[in-house]
Amino acid sequence: MASVIDSVVNLCKRRGLVYQAGEIYGGSRSAWDYGPLGVELKENIKRQWWRHMVQSRDDVVGIDSSIIQPTQTWISSGHVEVFTDPLVESLHTHKRYRADHLLEAYEEKHGHPPANGLADINDPETGQPGKWSEPKAFSGLLKTFLGPVDDEEGLHYLRPETAQGIFVNFKNVMTSARMKPPFGIANIGKSFRNEITPGNFIFRTREFEQMEMEFFVKPGEDEDWHQYWIDNRLQWYVDLGVNPENLRLYEHPQEKLSHYSKRTVDVEYAFGFQGSKWGELEGVANRTDYDLRVHSEHSGEDLSYFDQTTEERWIPYVIEPAAGLGRSMMAFLVDAYTEEEVPNAKGGTDTRVVLKLDRRLSPVKVAVLPLSKKEELSTPAKALADKLRGLWNVDYDVSGAIGRRYRRQDEIGTPFCVTYDFDSLEDNAVTVRERDSMEQERVKIDELETYLAARLAGC
Amino acid sequence: MASVIDSVVNLCKRRGLVYQAGEIYGGSRSAWDYGPLGVELKENIKRQWWRHMVQSRDDVVGIDSSIIQPTQTWISSGHVEVFTDPLVESLHTHKRYRADHLLEAYEEKHGHPPANGLADINDPETGQPGKWSEPKAFSGLLKTFLGPVDDEEGLHYLRPETAQGIFVNFKNVMTSARMKPPFGIANIGKSFRNEITPGNFIFRTREFEQMEMEFFVKPGEDEDWHQYWIDNRLQWYVDLGVNPENLRLYEHPQEKLSHYSKRTVDVEYAFGFQGSKWGELEGVANRTDYDLRVHSEHSGEDLSYFDQTTEERWIPYVIEPAAGLGRSMMAFLVDAYTEEEVPNAKGGTDTRVVLKLDRRLSPVKVAVLPLSKKEELSTPAKALADKLRGLWNVDYDVSGAIGRRYRRQDEIGTPFCVTYDFDSLEDNAVTVRERDSMEQERVKIDELETYLAARLAGC
Repeated sequence: MASVIDSVVNLCKRRGLVYQAGEIYGGSRSAWDYGPLGVELKENIKRQWWRHMVQSRDDVVGIDSSIIQPTQTWISSGHVEVFTDPLVESLHTHKRYRADHLLEAYEEKHGHPPANGLADINDPETGQPGKWSEPKAFSGLLKTFLGPVDDEEGLHYLRPETAQGIFVNFKNVMTSARMKPPFGIANIGKSFRNEITPGNFIFRTREFEQMEMEFFVKPGEDEDWHQYWIDNRLQWYVDLGVNPENLRLYEHPQEKLSHYSKRTVDVEYAFGFQGSKWGELEGVANRTDYDLRVHSEHSGEDLSYFDQTTEERWIPYVIEPAAGLGRSMMAFLVDAYTEEEVPNAKGGTDTRVVLKLDRRLSPVKVAVLPLSKKEELSTPAKALADKLRGLWNVDYDVSGAIGRRYRRQDEIGTPFCVTYDFDSLEDNAVTVRERDSMEQERVKIDELETYLAARLAGC
Repeated sequence: MASVIDSVVNLCKRRGLVYQAGEIYGGSRSAWDYGPLGVELKENIKRQWWRHMVQSRDDVVGIDSSIIQPTQTWISSGHVEVFTDPLVESLHTHKRYRADHLLEAYEEKHGHPPANGLADINDPETGQPGKWSEPKAFSGLLKTFLGPVDDEEGLHYLRPETAQGIFVNFKNVMTSARMKPPFGIANIGKSFRNEITPGNFIFRTREFEQMEMEFFVKPGEDEDWHQYWIDNRLQWYVDLGVNPENLRLYEHPQEKLSHYSKRTVDVEYAFGFQGSKWGELEGVANRTDYDLRVHSEHSGEDLSYFDQTTEERWIPYVIEPAAGLGRSMMAFLVDAYTEEEVPNAKGGTDTRVVLKLDRRLSPVKVAVLPLSKKEELSTPAKALADKLRGLWNVDYDVSGAIGRRYRRQDEIGTPFCVTYDFDSLEDNAVTVRERDSMEQERVKIDELETYLAARLAGC
């Protein structure tokens, strides 16, 4: 599996899905830039999530809250105090490490925890017997300063999750959109965490994009709704073509739950990272009434709900499916990446790389390919591409042998190639080739839009 | 006009288009949160821009670059050095002001600049003869620190424009997407500037969203392309329904051009702010080869283009249409906001508030309204709403008199209201009311999708 990740990373670079951020300056592991195909794929994932979670439901609405919220938001939520990792410094190299990671790695290797704690752990770089500073709490929040002076008054944080922007707007949304529990508020947007060890391509970055939804329910109904959303979210990946065998649910052990959580179940994908096969795509947490309660206490706003039918007042419990966009994009790519032996013209076989993405996710939906560069073909083919471009994201490619152009489209997951050939001038028809089956069908140009529209429904 | 802005701000709050960020903690002028209707409107504007600038063209591709780029990006681009404002501190109040703004305000009031500079300018708060500190350069860049220590090595900036993320990826995109000048790269995303005086609702904020495109052309062809994009961008607003009388082009005087610009023309909208009627929607700049040249010099990467047909090598000139998303949303809202006298049932008139948004921008496309709450109407009406929800963003509203429900949809700009009444049970038809004309038409339920699709093309 590790080699599939390498192949995907190479494909992403070569075909312009993902580049290192600021590569000409040596790049950064903190963030990645999405190229022409990557941005279309990423937007398609967002659109599918938004349609599924918001627009197709009458009980969920969306918002877009800002990255910089008032600082009090993060004091109330507990992030300023709790969102920290214990770091120790090696007195040999002056490099810093997560103390808990060092201890876990020791236990994994030796089958038992170190008898004397950190004192038993060697320096990971030099191998010398470790000499460690006392662990120091290190905030995962990224700071910035607003206003004319870098002082406490100007201190703000970049949000580490979109969730809090939803909670602080709970009352505004409930009132202005006239919603009643059970109902949800969804938000897609960037968040920032000062990860000590970003890595695994777009899996763990300091700047990342989240798709979060907070679903507000009556206390007592929270456990059923939690199970509903766990099932719903797992199924979403399956419905978008991910092999169910590469997905699993991971139940967080009770003693490792976050401070706000009653129960958390992750949806994981079998990325096959070095050292651990599974990686988290999203967490589905029962956050109880923790967030609304603390924001109510700190702000003085009443964030309860009065149920007129039962004449009861309660603070809603919250079920949160929180997905990482980069992670899901990586899972869709790894899952879709396929190398196949296909027969070639010489009676042997060639290896074809094909991204078997769900059509709704494919960055390019249709490629129009004139069989030859000659103007009598390229002019009408280009006009056809321009016409289809009003409906879908369309490629037009004239350079190289037709087989090579098919391969180019296969490896970016384009579902349909439309070839305009010399016969087209006579029969007003084109050859449509489907990506996975490689089957070809002759379709009248007059009927092409309808033909494609039927096969690209929901795109 | 000022009262139109107030009306729009009130409508935005009341109907959930825009809230103050973190309102329960006193809010912030640095940023705003977009509610359920605001996020749909904002996404529709982005989609129209992306379709117009990227997907409908074969000479522009998109990317999504990250907010945190390597620090060298901003050193090379000149932002670290040049992106500053001169600030002075009043020795009376210890408040800070833009020195250039104080001088300009004096000149506007007195018709001539102050003879002794700042010494002639009174403290704006107390009116005392001013005592001022020396002007000090104040950076408009927001800082953050990555990694385990807040030191120089960890110092990074939040991007003040998406443009540089495009320039540093110029070569990657040209190669992987196989583009040749003239071609463009577009990017939509958040940027951050430490504005001294944020204000005018969503017009000037510290966190904001940009829609930028950098168009790379052969030197010598830059002036024609510049004019092309000025005309194209002005027309975009007109095509999306903005009254041309409320739009104008503003030519930056030669002596006030940014350090990279040969010529800049702004598209302005007649917001009618206090003190100045016009506000910038976007700037269309001829950035010359400044950016590619400095990045080439600092990174050592060859960012030139070799034209095989003429065998010439050159660094492309860049034409940049750079639009603010919040600003354009505000202009679309102010322009669409209408108060009309309409006849009421009692033979008099009522005032109706209607957002005459282009249908492509309307947050909700169709509202389904059962004439009465009775189950025989509400059940089939709800089923109809759920069916249409697969195609468009749809509202379902059952509460209140039908006239009141029409008004609710009018003020959020919903183009079509579909009323399911008692006759519907007999004739399998519904009444479709169009927002602007208020004309009503009886449409067979079987034909409703086709009827609406024809009128919502391009949404």
